[in-house]
Amino acid sequence: MSSQFKGRVLLAYSGGLDTSCILRWLIEQGYEVMAYIANLGQEEDFEAARQKALKVGAIKVFVEDLRKEFVEELVFPSVQANAIYENIYLLGTSLARPVIARRQIEIAKQENCTHVSHGCTGKGNDQVRFELAYLALAPSIQIISPWRLEEFYTRFPGRQDLLKYAVDNQIPVSQTPSKPWSCDDNLYHISYEAGILEDPNVTPQKDMWRLTVDPEDAPDTPEFIDITFTKGIPSRVQNKADNTDISEPLDLFIYLNNAACRNGIGRLDIVENRFIGIKSRGCYETPAGTILRVAHIDIEGLVMDREVRAYRDEHVSLQYGKVLYNGLYFSPEGKLLKNIVNLTQDCVNGVVRIKLYKGNVIVLGRFSESESLYDMEESSMDVQGGFEPKDSEGFIKIQSIRLKKYGRSL
Amino acid sequence: MSSQFKGRVLLAYSGGLDTSCILRWLIEQGYEVMAYIANLGQEEDFEAARQKALKVGAIKVFVEDLRKEFVEELVFPSVQANAIYENIYLLGTSLARPVIARRQIEIAKQENCTHVSHGCTGKGNDQVRFELAYLALAPSIQIISPWRLEEFYTRFPGRQDLLKYAVDNQIPVSQTPSKPWSCDDNLYHISYEAGILEDPNVTPQKDMWRLTVDPEDAPDTPEFIDITFTKGIPSRVQNKADNTDISEPLDLFIYLNNAACRNGIGRLDIVENRFIGIKSRGCYETPAGTILRVAHIDIEGLVMDREVRAYRDEHVSLQYGKVLYNGLYFSPEGKLLKNIVNLTQDCVNGVVRIKLYKGNVIVLGRFSESESLYDMEESSMDVQGGFEPKDSEGFIKIQSIRLKKYGRSL
Amino acid sequence: MSSQFKGRVLLAYSGGLDTSCILRWLIEQGYEVMAYIANLGQEEDFEAARQKALKVGAIKVFVEDLRKEFVEELVFPSVQANAIYENIYLLGTSLARPVIARRQIEIAKQENCTHVSHGCTGKGNDQVRFELAYLALAPSIQIISPWRLEEFYTRFPGRQDLLKYAVDNQIPVSQTPSKPWSCDDNLYHISYEAGILEDPNVTPQKDMWRLTVDPEDAPDTPEFIDITFTKGIPSRVQNKADNTDISEPLDLFIYLNNAACRNGIGRLDIVENRFIGIKSRGCYETPAGTILRVAHIDIEGLVMDREVRAYRDEHVSLQYGKVLYNGLYFSPEGKLLKNIVNLTQDCVNGVVRIKLYKGNVIVLGRFSESESLYDMEESSMDVQGGFEPKDSEGFIKIQSIRLKKYGRSL
Amino acid sequence: MSSQFKGRVLLAYSGGLDTSCILRWLIEQGYEVMAYIANLGQEEDFEAARQKALKVGAIKVFVEDLRKEFVEELVFPSVQANAIYENIYLLGTSLARPVIARRQIEIAKQENCTHVSHGCTGKGNDQVRFELAYLALAPSIQIISPWRLEEFYTRFPGRQDLLKYAVDNQIPVSQTPSKPWSCDDNLYHISYEAGILEDPNVTPQKDMWRLTVDPEDAPDTPEFIDITFTKGIPSRVQNKADNTDISEPLDLFIYLNNAACRNGIGRLDIVENRFIGIKSRGCYETPAGTILRVAHIDIEGLVMDREVRAYRDEHVSLQYGKVLYNGLYFSPEGKLLKNIVNLTQDCVNGVVRIKLYKGNVIVLGRFSESESLYDMEESSMDVQGGFEPKDSEGFIKIQSIRLKKYGRSL
Repeated sequence: MSSQFKGRVLLAYSGGLDTSCILRWLIEQGYEVMAYIANLGQEEDFEAARQKALKVGAIKVFVEDLRKEFVEELVFPSVQANAIYENIYLLGTSLARPVIARRQIEIAKQENCTHVSHGCTGKGNDQVRFELAYLALAPSIQIISPWRLEEFYTRFPGRQDLLKYAVDNQIPVSQTPSKPWSCDDNLYHISYEAGILEDPNVTPQKDMWRLTVDPEDAPDTPEFIDITFTKGIPSRVQNKADNTDISEPLDLFIYLNNAACRNGIGRLDIVENRFIGIKSRGCYETPAGTILRVAHIDIEGLVMDREVRAYRDEHVSLQYGKVLYNGLYFSPEGKLLKNIVNLTQDCVNGVVRIKLYKGNVIVLGRFSESESLYDMEESSMDVQGGFEPKDSEGFIKIQSIRLKKYGRSL
Repeated sequence: MSSQFKGRVLLAYSGGLDTSCILRWLIEQGYEVMAYIANLGQEEDFEAARQKALKVGAIKVFVEDLRKEFVEELVFPSVQANAIYENIYLLGTSLARPVIARRQIEIAKQENCTHVSHGCTGKGNDQVRFELAYLALAPSIQIISPWRLEEFYTRFPGRQDLLKYAVDNQIPVSQTPSKPWSCDDNLYHISYEAGILEDPNVTPQKDMWRLTVDPEDAPDTPEFIDITFTKGIPSRVQNKADNTDISEPLDLFIYLNNAACRNGIGRLDIVENRFIGIKSRGCYETPAGTILRVAHIDIEGLVMDREVRAYRDEHVSLQYGKVLYNGLYFSPEGKLLKNIVNLTQDCVNGVVRIKLYKGNVIVLGRFSESESLYDMEESSMDVQGGFEPKDSEGFIKIQSIRLKKYGRSL
Repeated sequence: MSSQFKGRVLLAYSGGLDTSCILRWLIEQGYEVMAYIANLGQEEDFEAARQKALKVGAIKVFVEDLRKEFVEELVFPSVQANAIYENIYLLGTSLARPVIARRQIEIAKQENCTHVSHGCTGKGNDQVRFELAYLALAPSIQIISPWRLEEFYTRFPGRQDLLKYAVDNQIPVSQTPSKPWSCDDNLYHISYEAGILEDPNVTPQKDMWRLTVDPEDAPDTPEFIDITFTKGIPSRVQNKADNTDISEPLDLFIYLNNAACRNGIGRLDIVENRFIGIKSRGCYETPAGTILRVAHIDIEGLVMDREVRAYRDEHVSLQYGKVLYNGLYFSPEGKLLKNIVNLTQDCVNGVVRIKLYKGNVIVLGRFSESESLYDMEESSMDVQGGFEPKDSEGFIKIQSIRLKKYGRSL
Repeated sequence: MSSQFKGRVLLAYSGGLDTSCILRWLIEQGYEVMAYIANLGQEEDFEAARQKALKVGAIKVFVEDLRKEFVEELVFPSVQANAIYENIYLLGTSLARPVIARRQIEIAKQENCTHVSHGCTGKGNDQVRFELAYLALAPSIQIISPWRLEEFYTRFPGRQDLLKYAVDNQIPVSQTPSKPWSCDDNLYHISYEAGILEDPNVTPQKDMWRLTVDPEDAPDTPEFIDITFTKGIPSRVQNKADNTDISEPLDLFIYLNNAACRNGIGRLDIVENRFIGIKSRGCYETPAGTILRVAHIDIEGLVMDREVRAYRDEHVSLQYGKVLYNGLYFSPEGKLLKNIVNLTQDCVNGVVRIKLYKGNVIVLGRFSESESLYDMEESSMDVQGGFEPKDSEGFIKIQSIRLKKYGRSL
């Protein structure tokens, strides 16, 4: 507790046991510590966390409401992109990290901090995501990553050691028994991993899921919602049953989240590949994100040119998903891909009508007043509109030139 | 009915009004006609269809059960590939065409037919799929596509004209009133399109769906099924509740179809882009296919190397989906892609445990006895197994070299 | 010569035998014909062509100098994109077509033409390129493509028939004996195909090549040129030996063309795959284009981020090349790709020093005053600058996690 | 010099100053050292190197001729793949590493070595390539990488320190003054980097290049060579002028190397992006590789299906190039890609006739006796063979459906 002054650290603080111990330990090592709490909509008593940080020894605490920029700058563009990781994961944790890191660096600069710190483990994706963002935004910032420091992780080999340290240092400890898994939540999603979930064949217990109701417990009658997209961004949500008509992005997103949660929508249980080349099992809930993905893909069917859509599917969605997953949002390729996504969304204007029912997001129909790629007469099988059937003849014959040669070699 | 002899045609015959009129019309034009009925598991009285073809004038009728090769050669490989079109369509119609066309050509050769014919419209995908397959397999075969022949489509501008022609020619006409949409089914799926569905904002009426029950009408209690994959192919289905344990491909597929149908699984309503560059709205049911896609993607998470999986996702699944959709199964690129899919599936061995409930396919867990990429100790956040946390430090630092430069330009 | 009035046609006219006969034939069919001659820098006496068109019967002739827009809007962006077709072809003909078609449509609209026409054959790429551009820019324009009209091509089965028709109709015929191949040239390139070149094993005779000298006949001493790029666009060419210092795009391009031609640079002889699925053998000269490709790729090495470059190489260059080759410049995907190219070129600023010698374009060095991704200290093997060698250790260890598992299965 | 026994090391030994000092230093640290010298065709007195290793203290020395497997297993498949890195680099160093590492691991296992070691720096690609290969092939092998060990690199901060250590330890030192750059050569290529080359604007001095003559000094008369490919592998080289007719892979490759070298073919000077995210300038000579790339791409034009070629170009060549460059030959994706390459090459059979002249590789013609995709009559512009011109009409019209809609929005 008596080392020389080593610098000023801005610590990403959660209010939990780990970062509270880290806060105190950093002070012990000779750092002056400020705590930074990002509000991304997670379930948390932010005021209690602030008081706790001060009690543990932070000289200053920042509680920052980042929900709006999270939804507008990260979540909605990823809906536009149909961003996805390994076919299935909607990138909940990944999307939060850039927003958290960016504000942390802003405050660190403003408060003349020499260091930033976080409580991520040394085997996960989040250490990479935070630190690549820190270094892109402040190339000369120094990073303290306690769970990668031998002096730290050998001192705290298990949870009991942290608890003992907390008690020894008058750090308040939650009386709630800890769960046999860890979780991370924000407005967009919650993730569960580690502990008993590490066996990929163990079915999560029913009470693990915190956001959504079990589909089996969801209402027996469906709900009907209309979602309007403007340039691929959800811009309006309507529900006649409860007179909902919302356009403000954050409110709209929260409304969809609630609707999804009460209808049991958005659960996922997968084994994924971390950037740190190991496999890991995660369970996720992404309520509104799941609805928006279905609706966005649907409206694109109506209004997007075939080749632009194919290009985006082949060359953008997976790539952008990977960039986000790997913590490369603040990178040349991250910027490029986000700009490309925008280039594809000018025409994505229209309304999708959906039904929510016990885990299902069912599309009932869609229309667009401004876009006109869909042509009822032309696509009709009944009328001779749009083009001559004999045009298809030439089309097929030209396509077959190559194939006839192939056929000769069969 | 008195023109000169023009050749012998093998007509893909469905037993319906269109192909019955085509059959007679071809005879009228001077052709000798054989009828070919492919059994891909569609709902059909094949014996009645055979008798009808003979009555209309076919000199010979072939009814061919192609279900097994359909499942083994087309459906299962597309499960292996995670093949999909425009993010969402599971290619039900596309998968059937190569099997139908191949057998048609085999019979045409065996019977010395000079021509083949089909009843597809001149605006759809199926004309392309059939004819590209015909021409690849028999480059010099002649194709009669009546709906693209002016003399045919001007003679039969509407359904009434076909009906009148049928009555005039003693062709038996079904008494069932026709639906205000058209549909095409096989063991794997059913599609609905045209008619009132041409307005993409019209919600299909409840009784349109023929295969699956409405999720709202599905049982209130879930079913539990275990699916085993061997090299990415579904090789065993088990359901303890009803003592199911099936390994035979066709039986296994039919079992999954039934399970999906009774639990309301596999409906889809989309606007898609046809190969013939127009947009079209289609509703689909793909019951077993939907379960298999979920399960196959899940087991891959457990057993597949990250980079192989990423390669397949980026370079194979969409591409193979497009090849199938566009009728290019019998093509150099179709053959190449199918072979590439195989190269990726050696390790895809394991069991996925799923729950079916009112439209949902829920993964409960998975395991593999033979594959070992997942390493519980290594991925554990608790233990120091597998690698040193400080390795991550170097990994991040090397990754950040580029980003720090990027940061300087922000 | 006495049919009724069928409309007013704007014919893309070259002054040669084919389009002169087409001009007269269109008049014969009852059309009023205007002639349109695009100057893209091809070797041509434009005034003579104008007079000839009038003499043959055109009611009006437009000679349009499109060289500047050709270089600025088509050629330079394709240098930025490193656009290429089938590894090797620099798209000379393809790049000219959009510029020609666009102006043709503009004039057609201004002159109230009901039709446009061209002299392309029915088996080549150019008919597709012209007509797709026409239809994108004027969806309701009518197109007359004589070489696809049975009444035309059966009337003129061979060159002799065209010659006879010309003589019969007082169309002046060039006395120069025709070459046993056809060619098409513009400022950017010349192509040779057909005739004796159709045997892909016949080496073109020495005097076929019209733009560049044979490398064996090029000067024995090299020339030295500096090329400056600004956002990927060639913005300055300097040659101290002859006091050259040019910034005007067209002049700069012409200078490079001349330098390349006299040094034997830019010849190519390939078999390529046409959009109309047949193979075809072509010989090409692309003098300045060849220099610019080498120099542009070189400067990108110095200034472009690795991942942006890799993205562009994998997802843009080939795709843009294919779009151009297939005549889809005026398409949603063409516009998208051109915009993506721009997003990648902001940093492509710097100077490349090259040596031209007997067919070779040799890079001697490069520098950039504004960009700084290259860091001499960091990349030095001698000093410990930039990062710690032990960082590489962690980087390698993390990368190897997957591979060790792979190793166990070998 | 007196530490305890730490294990037995197999050191990749070059005979040069660095690895000689490493050899002695390892002994000093308590290791028993065996030396391993891989003969990949580099310019080296292998017997002298063996004696030197023994003199410095190696208990055993292995000199292994790996040239044949290098050419057959690495070089030729990369010709088949048209593998390339960043548009231009032919992967000379990368291709050698897997062969060297594989034999090193084989010997290490056979000799019960506990460790392997190499002399690569801590900032380059080669450390990654060697070590990823070691770890894939022997997951539990221990690696000593002296230039990443602080105790080593702080003891030898500069070349003078190595020289002094050599003198102090009776290690023979070459009297040739060292060059102001470093180089690495093998049968396939030589690379030059570091030293004065670190300034990317410094033109390499004329006498740096060791393999090829300067194009300006090459013969004034060209040479003519025919290269036969069988399944994409060069299988025969003929030169009538000197009665050459070679089919043995290694001999054939050496012959092409000599022909290229004397004609000034294969030089390159680039700035590239290392896997270790820094930029680096390299100069390369790849004589035979340059000829083979030109010839292989050419024959593919004649015999390969368009879509297979496009697939390979878009999805295989760059990807395989990156895998090789990044040292991932022994990886799941490396194996997959190599197998995919094979799938594409069955048809690549034929002969390319080339002319070599002062740096130029000029294709004169090509033919294939077994393949028949090229059809002279069909591609002819003169005859009406193969397909009806009016087929193109339908082809274009169908293609334009999308574009007309796009046009309406312009």
